[in-house]
Amino acid sequence: MAQQRDDERRARANAAAVAAMTAAEPVITDVVPALDALPGMTPNTILTSGAPLPWARYAGGQRRAVLGAAVFEGLAATVQEADALLHEGRILVEPCHDHGCVGSVTGVASASMPVWVVTDPVSGGRGHCLLYEGSDRQRLTYGVWNEKVRRRLVWIRDVLAPHLATTLRTTGGIPVKPLIRRALGMGDDLHSRNTAATAVLFQRLAGPLLDANGLSAESREVLDFLSGNDLFFLHVAMAAGKCVADTAAGTEHSSIVTAMAVSEHEFAIRVAGTGERWFRAPVPELKAKLFDGITADDIAFMGGESLITETVGLGGLAAAAAFSLQDYSAGSAPGMVAATEAMYGITHGEHPEWKIPYLGFRGVPFGIDAALVASTGVTPSIHMGAALREGGHAGAGLLIAPAQPFQDAVEALDG
Amino acid sequence: MAQQRDDERRARANAAAVAAMTAAEPVITDVVPALDALPGMTPNTILTSGAPLPWARYAGGQRRAVLGAAVFEGLAATVQEADALLHEGRILVEPCHDHGCVGSVTGVASASMPVWVVTDPVSGGRGHCLLYEGSDRQRLTYGVWNEKVRRRLVWIRDVLAPHLATTLRTTGGIPVKPLIRRALGMGDDLHSRNTAATAVLFQRLAGPLLDANGLSAESREVLDFLSGNDLFFLHVAMAAGKCVADTAAGTEHSSIVTAMAVSEHEFAIRVAGTGERWFRAPVPELKAKLFDGITADDIAFMGGESLITETVGLGGLAAAAAFSLQDYSAGSAPGMVAATEAMYGITHGEHPEWKIPYLGFRGVPFGIDAALVASTGVTPSIHMGAALREGGHAGAGLLIAPAQPFQDAVEALDG
Repeated sequence: MAQQRDDERRARANAAAVAAMTAAEPVITDVVPALDALPGMTPNTILTSGAPLPWARYAGGQRRAVLGAAVFEGLAATVQEADALLHEGRILVEPCHDHGCVGSVTGVASASMPVWVVTDPVSGGRGHCLLYEGSDRQRLTYGVWNEKVRRRLVWIRDVLAPHLATTLRTTGGIPVKPLIRRALGMGDDLHSRNTAATAVLFQRLAGPLLDANGLSAESREVLDFLSGNDLFFLHVAMAAGKCVADTAAGTEHSSIVTAMAVSEHEFAIRVAGTGERWFRAPVPELKAKLFDGITADDIAFMGGESLITETVGLGGLAAAAAFSLQDYSAGSAPGMVAATEAMYGITHGEHPEWKIPYLGFRGVPFGIDAALVASTGVTPSIHMGAALREGGHAGAGLLIAPAQPFQDAVEALDG
Repeated sequence: MAQQRDDERRARANAAAVAAMTAAEPVITDVVPALDALPGMTPNTILTSGAPLPWARYAGGQRRAVLGAAVFEGLAATVQEADALLHEGRILVEPCHDHGCVGSVTGVASASMPVWVVTDPVSGGRGHCLLYEGSDRQRLTYGVWNEKVRRRLVWIRDVLAPHLATTLRTTGGIPVKPLIRRALGMGDDLHSRNTAATAVLFQRLAGPLLDANGLSAESREVLDFLSGNDLFFLHVAMAAGKCVADTAAGTEHSSIVTAMAVSEHEFAIRVAGTGERWFRAPVPELKAKLFDGITADDIAFMGGESLITETVGLGGLAAAAAFSLQDYSAGSAPGMVAATEAMYGITHGEHPEWKIPYLGFRGVPFGIDAALVASTGVTPSIHMGAALREGGHAGAGLLIAPAQPFQDAVEALDG
């Protein structure tokens, strides 16, 4: 009897959590410095991906990126000085997710770096993510800090961001759901592939960008950047995903997953009913297709929160929408269909607007239920970028989430 | 023995014809008035879709569009006067295909109307097609002639075309094969759906268009037009299709199809080995999904040569690349896969660069062989727009070609 009552209570809570996520209407409204946008952000805070670890445990890409950001931000003159200040706690490292933000790979963001502001007028909530850094394999996102990376971050801060900000303020904002709906019909999963969404966003932005900024050498550079980086939309999808997932966060008794994230060492999740608590496990193996000349020994985890796209039904959950990714996913189109089919077994429902053409326009599997993951043993299929151990973009692949964090979350909810 | 010799001769001819089509490298090089671009074009010639008919047999949309074009061109002050001049042969109506051109639906083009110039440096050949008229359902393409249609044609001639021409002359041209390859990976069939190709072309054109023309009210209108009409690329694909198919035209003994076209009354084809001869049959039924409020009784054929896309392996032949079109095609994703699979049985080979993600990146069925159509009875599956009897765009659907013209072509080759 008690079990049945608990099950009914969870079912009601999950229905409410997923209803909130479904009702969200994320709109890209602005681009502003992280310090001005993110709740609790301070000048000496550096954000990074995943459940938090003590500074000493960051040894690879996340460490390099945090040190680089500290220097970029002027908090230290050298990476050595930055390291000392981090050990002393005079520079803080905190999880993106604790500041309304999500980060790609290392996910490192500092105060002056511009973030997308995605607003949901229904819930009043917001989600944020840094601007995409460009398709050069070497970038802070992938654990590289050098002069070229610094110069690009300066250009993003001083040229790209202000142009986008004036454009968005002039247009009154761009709703994200229709862009994602359209891109799913054009072969994107919105995680490893954002080719169509980037093109569609460019169709929407190019004219208004010229209206707001005029034609100049700088606006011309911005047009080239927006049209020449096929993953540019990923960070918009991530900010929107955070905005949507957070509408469920804090729903008492609900086992709906509100975040999945990795650090150098751990895969971790949050569920709606346990708020900001992380449930952790060691990171599993990434089955990746790597760029020419790179082998499995060359890659390493250095964080990632783009898994927020899976959290809202995209990425690996929407594999059957993105057959062009087959070599970076299940290996074949039928394999991708099977992967998505399996995800319907661990999700609360289907998204009413985000459809998969191959499945007769069935909605994407939406609202991962940790209780269903725990009871079936089927875990989320995640599309993810692969990083070079020494820094740099190495390819992309498929991550099968470990079951432990989902089981632990359900136990905590039941406890 | 004689039969075997003939078969071998045809096999060699078909291999040569398809090799030429495969080797073509169509490049968008210019936009110029039809009079300046099309071989044999004269100021008092009006082109239209399909195998030619006597003027008196045109009774519906093609008739209205030809009369409208005569008035647009200043060849007559009224449609009544134009009709008299057409009966007297003082205004000529000729097939697009005889002038290196293909037309959408009515396919009506007159001397001052601008056409895409697509050039193949390999063969030295060219293909042409009018610019897309916009997504308003009422347009000359769909058999409507009125003041709004006239004004839009003037804008296309006086604003859109010169902007594109300066852009293309400045860039040195845009290769079409990579655009089509990319769009097939993004859910386009390149006939009924050109959403991705249009977006990708916009990514390529926007910056260069501003470089060549500067920012003005007019160039801003052009950007809106290029980014706001999802079928804009169709006419580029058609011009490229004509350019590619014509590399096979005239290949002695070859049964490879080089043109498929419809008029108000007939479906007709050409094959490589019989040059400009048309093989005709009555038009079959179009199984169409129509816009709300339109019924099957409301639609009528008024021509069409966008079937040139199927002639080069796209459209209905590439159905399995474009599941978003399922309601306008075979009705389901598996139906579209089956349709494409069947097309491999009547084509000479597969295109080495144009791939279908769902089929493990197998090349599109390429080079329709009339002899295989005749021997199997399987005929091309064609994606096609539907037109309102009274004029206007009514929807899109699936046309299964009649077998007779293919059989007749093979008989003519054998005879």
